[in-house]
Order: sequence, then C-alpha cells, then structure tokens
Amino acid sequence: MQSTEQYKKLVERMKQFSADRDWSQFHDPKNLAISLQLEASEVLELFQWTKDNKMKPGKEEDMADELADVMYWLVMLSNHYNIDLTQALEKKMDKNELKYPIEKAKGKSDKYTEL
Amino acid sequence: MQSTEQYKKLVERMKQFSADRDWSQFHDPKNLAISLQLEASEVLELFQWTKDNKMKPGKEEDMADELADVMYWLVMLSNHYNIDLTQALEKKMDKNELKYPIEKAKGKSDKYTEL
Amino acid sequence: MQSTEQYKKLVERMKQFSADRDWSQFHDPKNLAISLQLEASEVLELFQWTKDNKMKPGKEEDMADELADVMYWLVMLSNHYNIDLTQALEKKMDKNELKYPIEKAKGKSDKYTEL
Amino acid sequence: MQSTEQYKKLVERMKQFSADRDWSQFHDPKNLAISLQLEASEVLELFQWTKDNKMKPGKEEDMADELADVMYWLVMLSNHYNIDLTQALEKKMDKNELKYPIEKAKGKSDKYTEL
Repeated sequence: MQSTEQYKKLVERMKQFSADRDWSQFHDPKNLAISLQLEASEVLELFQWTKDNKMKPGKEEDMADELADVMYWLVMLSNHYNIDLTQALEKKMDKNELKYPIEKAKGKSDKYTEL
Repeated sequence: MQSTEQYKKLVERMKQFSADRDWSQFHDPKNLAISLQLEASEVLELFQWTKDNKMKPGKEEDMADELADVMYWLVMLSNHYNIDLTQALEKKMDKNELKYPIEKAKGKSDKYTEL
Repeated sequence: MQSTEQYKKLVERMKQFSADRDWSQFHDPKNLAISLQLEASEVLELFQWTKDNKMKPGKEEDMADELADVMYWLVMLSNHYNIDLTQALEKKMDKNELKYPIEKAKGKSDKYTEL
Repeated sequence: MQSTEQYKKLVERMKQFSADRDWSQFHDPKNLAISLQLEASEVLELFQWTKDNKMKPGKEEDMADELADVMYWLVMLSNHYNIDLTQALEKKMDKNELKYPIEKAKGKSDKYTEL
C-alpha cells in the first residue's frame, strides 16, 4: 500500500495531524498497540447483543468510522516499525497456505494446531 | 487502497484462500469482528510485561505477522460492507481535525469530550 | 468477597506466588490491565467461528481456566487499588438500576444513552 | 465465592435485574463473552496515553466501576457454565505453580513455553 499517491498523502496527513498537536510524545509503540486494541473493540461493540450475527441496524457510518480508526493505528504501528502492510499480508498468506492445506482444512474452523 | 493492482490481487487471493477451504460459512460479520479483536490482542501481547513501552526484543517478525493478521480481518470486514478503507480514513481525518482543534488539543492526551 | 477465609487464603497464595518469582517488578497497573484484557480475549476465543453462539464443544475445562485467568488479574487490579469487588459491584448495580429503568429498558438491548 | 451470604444476594440481585428487563434473550454465552471483553477494554482505556504506566489521574471511581463491570460478566458467564470462580482460580493456581517453577521463572516475564 505504500505505493499509491493517495495512500502516501494520507500517511503524510496523519503525521502532520499528530505533529501539529504535539502528540508524538504519547505515541510510544505500547500505547499505539493499546489504541489498536481499543478501536478493534469498538468495531466489536457494533455487534453487542445482536442475535443474528449481523451488525446493529443503522450503524453503517459508525462501522466505516470504526474500521478507519483501526486502520489509523495499524498504519501508525506499521510506520513505527517500517513494515509494509501489503507485503506483510502477502507473506502471511504464504504462511497461511502452508498452515492450512486445503485437503485438511476444508469446511473446518479448527486452528491449524488442532487440524 | 482499492486502486492498486497489488492490493486488488491480494484481496482476490484472500477470497480464493477462503473459498478453497469452504470457510465463508464461518465468516459472518460478527465472527469477523471477533477475529479482528483477537488479532489486535495478539499485537498487544507483544508488549505484555514490558517496562519500557517497547516491544519484547526479538519479536520483529511476529509484529509483522500480527499486523498482517489485523489487516486481514480489516480487509475482510471492509469488503463485507463495501467500505473503501482509504476513503473511510480520509473522512475520519476530516472529523478528527474538527474534534481536535490544534489550539485546544496541543500537547494534551484528553479525549475530545474532555478537552 | 474480601470477607471469606477461602478468598483471603487465595489472595495470599496469589501474592506469595508472585513474590516467590520476583514478578512484582512487571506488575505495574498498566501491565495488569493489559493482562486482564488479553485473558478476556482468550475467553472470547472459545467462541471464535461458532455459528450457534455457544462455546466450541469440548472446551469446558478451558472455559474454567480462562475465567480463572480473568479473575486472577481482576483480583490483582482490585488489590492494587484497594477496591472491594463485591462492594464495587453492588454500587454499580445501584447505578445500573437508575440508568436502566424497567419501563424504559424492558426487552431492549440499547445502551442507556440511546433508550 | 459462592459461599458468602453477601455474594449470594448479589448474584440474586443480578439475575432479578436481568429478568425484570427481559434481557436473558440477549445473554447467550457468546454475547456474554463479548461483553466481558468490551468491559476489560474499558479498564485498559483508563491507561490510554499514560507515559508512567499508571492510571490517568482522577479516575479512581471509574476504575471501581469498570472492574465491577468486568466482574459482572465474569459472574454471568460462570453462572451460565456452573463454574465456581474461587475453585476454578485455586485449580488454575495449581497449574500455574507447575508451569512456572520458582527456579526457572524467577525474575523472568517469559511465557512458560519460552522459559
């Protein structure tokens, strides 16, 4: 994802946003990881008490906002560690394909250690 | 992010990976949100018991893998709801800039409701 | 809960366990809160990919262990802040009864701010 | 903890609170586990952006409330599965003492699998 102009501009904007507010002092990686976790919980909260495994009705804009918040801290963490997210995900897919061979994993939700 | 060839190919690969294993039956959005939360916790686990707010030493590859896992479920959820993550993050930045005016937020870690 | 002999002995045992291993150096309250969150995620993991909103089959002992782990960090945090959990929960029930009046909340899963 | 009158009364009060509001329909165990996780995140949020690993100042009452909320869902889940929390924690301590022998674990924050 580091490759598109749109993405580069967005990351620059995020950095500027933080610099303008003198917030880098709070952004040690442990705190970034806490925020990532807290925002992932806010995504999950959109499903709290639902009985049909769907999002609560009328929360589409909230979903976009909460996924954006998760993306925000994911980008901040990947920048901190100089990790290219697309490349990292491609490598993880390589691993996943080895850990979950089709013939073993088909139709099963077990963890690879229990297959 | 929907715009690059690399990203499009990656999303196709993710869909194929899941289809090959007949896993879409498990991927209702509530379960996707649970997995997003669980993977965010695995990022956080890399900081468990650290005293200096840095990652445990020697875990760089684990960090890349765990961020990739968060990205994975983020992409799956955004696909489910037809949300363009880059656009959603740009919109969220618009909101953040309104919620956290520089003069009020500078040097403070308070939530916008407490500024 | 501070009141029973069994509970007092258990807390003493937990403190001794930690002291014997020289672990209090890692147990600043932020790290305790991270561990509480990580253990709550392990409870949630017992429901990952289920379609019927029940725990994965055959995980009864795991559930007891994971709830115990959550309890562990809850007790450690409450000790750190000298909070009596039973009293705190009674006070919270007082608040809940005010926030969710029966006539307004009956049959609804909405947050009190949205009732 | 099932043993004290105070605790028994509290559990009865929690059950009555839920029954009065016709909420048991929402309380399948998966939803209970989600709420446990969400409340654990609210505890963690009291440490968001802190630099000294302590809670944000002036949040003592919030801490008591959030720990009570975690306790709430922990009790609800343990009731659902007929798990005695004190007993479960005693058994878990037995396991912990075997997994973390003093001579191996002293002064180290490693997971037992990495000791």
